[in-house]
Amino acid sequence: MKTAYSELRGKTPEEVRAAIRDGRYASHTAGLGPGYLQANLAIMPEAFALDFMRFCQRNPKPCPLTGVSDTGNPMMFTLGRDIDIRTDVPAYNIYRDGVYDSSTLDIRDMWGADSVAFALGCSFTFERALEEAGIRLWHIDNDKTVPMFRSSIQTVPAGPFRGPMVVSMRAIPEAQVEMAAEISRKYPQAHGAPVHWGDPAEIGIADVSRPDWGDPAPVPEGSVPVFWACGVTPQVAIERAGLPVCITHKPGHMLITDVAEDAEVPVIPQD
Amino acid sequence: MKTAYSELRGKTPEEVRAAIRDGRYASHTAGLGPGYLQANLAIMPEAFALDFMRFCQRNPKPCPLTGVSDTGNPMMFTLGRDIDIRTDVPAYNIYRDGVYDSSTLDIRDMWGADSVAFALGCSFTFERALEEAGIRLWHIDNDKTVPMFRSSIQTVPAGPFRGPMVVSMRAIPEAQVEMAAEISRKYPQAHGAPVHWGDPAEIGIADVSRPDWGDPAPVPEGSVPVFWACGVTPQVAIERAGLPVCITHKPGHMLITDVAEDAEVPVIPQD
Repeated sequence: MKTAYSELRGKTPEEVRAAIRDGRYASHTAGLGPGYLQANLAIMPEAFALDFMRFCQRNPKPCPLTGVSDTGNPMMFTLGRDIDIRTDVPAYNIYRDGVYDSSTLDIRDMWGADSVAFALGCSFTFERALEEAGIRLWHIDNDKTVPMFRSSIQTVPAGPFRGPMVVSMRAIPEAQVEMAAEISRKYPQAHGAPVHWGDPAEIGIADVSRPDWGDPAPVPEGSVPVFWACGVTPQVAIERAGLPVCITHKPGHMLITDVAEDAEVPVIPQD
Repeated sequence: MKTAYSELRGKTPEEVRAAIRDGRYASHTAGLGPGYLQANLAIMPEAFALDFMRFCQRNPKPCPLTGVSDTGNPMMFTLGRDIDIRTDVPAYNIYRDGVYDSSTLDIRDMWGADSVAFALGCSFTFERALEEAGIRLWHIDNDKTVPMFRSSIQTVPAGPFRGPMVVSMRAIPEAQVEMAAEISRKYPQAHGAPVHWGDPAEIGIADVSRPDWGDPAPVPEGSVPVFWACGVTPQVAIERAGLPVCITHKPGHMLITDVAEDAEVPVIPQD
């Protein structure tokens, strides 16, 4: 018995995760668990975990670290009650030696005694806040994926993790740019304030109509291209690092946590 | 040739660190390098670093992680130009097997190939912001150390690191409490918003006039005791963990960074 997306709208994070864990739902999570933090996922062997954590600490805008598992323990107890990271994400991508290998719906057979799971905040959070403030987002209105670009801004390296910062672009009416910056700055768990707005060439983007990932989006007359640090950045760094094995969420198929979007810290009360 | 505290007031962080590195200054750092983030310090063998970083991630209010060195590299390049953590802190405390052993003015002979240094934000930052908003702080006006208490709030454990949250208390006039909370919340690198205000017994403090560390401070009629998460928390966790060796700053003798206090992220631009 599958559960439809429409049936999960308005449900609590726990209810949505239960449907995912039972194999009843394996699709994208945009708009689900409203008000709660959603997270990108990266699972790797412990040998790389300290350097990856340093990479996140040094690049908090593209890599806002919201949770880290104990080594070998799949329960993400700081992010929610009863979150099993092996089964509670709708779909996973598996990378071997830095190259995409396959997708899967659960990773019970791949989780090991030396596995460490990282959860990183994502843009859903600040996008909702922008929309609530009356800022229209073209890619959402048109059911597209936000355009993303490899920028000339470099991340601060840590061990094998390094590379360009990937940025996402949203065209914002000139009069709303400052407000958009101010609002998103309030969400450090979700990339924070923009890293740049205005001339795309200043951050190494030659053609703003030709994204490296996602769908092209227009920049209408009177609007300004605004660039935020993007969660694809750690993905690119992980690929470059060529880890023997690494598991991520499938894009758009996030972990839905029990942490409120406006929580001061991304840690739920422990019993 | 020693340099007096008064000569260093108003100097840049780089100038103050130069005096410290040259052995010309070995005293406390309160009020020095105004406008720049100061940090607590913990240096430990790499074997404990991943768990300690998890401990900080899970307890960001008592342990706001602002910088982490590479293993074996004493240059804290994300926090400043030319910061050598072996020489640029005025004084260090050395712990062996979780017990205080001795203090020293530099640790060049103790830094090793497996050493990792952690810098953690401290309360100086939000205290300055409170004072600028017109909130008087008794311990500063009277040249005392803020009173600190072992609370009944438990930290979220990570590996060997666990234990009670230590809190600092500042008595704030009732009418200013909300404002004090709002202001300090803007400084997540410096303990953020208070963890509690009002009845001390609610967080396990039997007698607010008898602190576990620091000096007693009055709570005048019309004022409310306000409690912030405190940087002694990781110190206590480190002592409990009984690390074979751990080096911290000597209390009050902080690292002065080149990161602006109001920076969105505690990372300076890299060349």
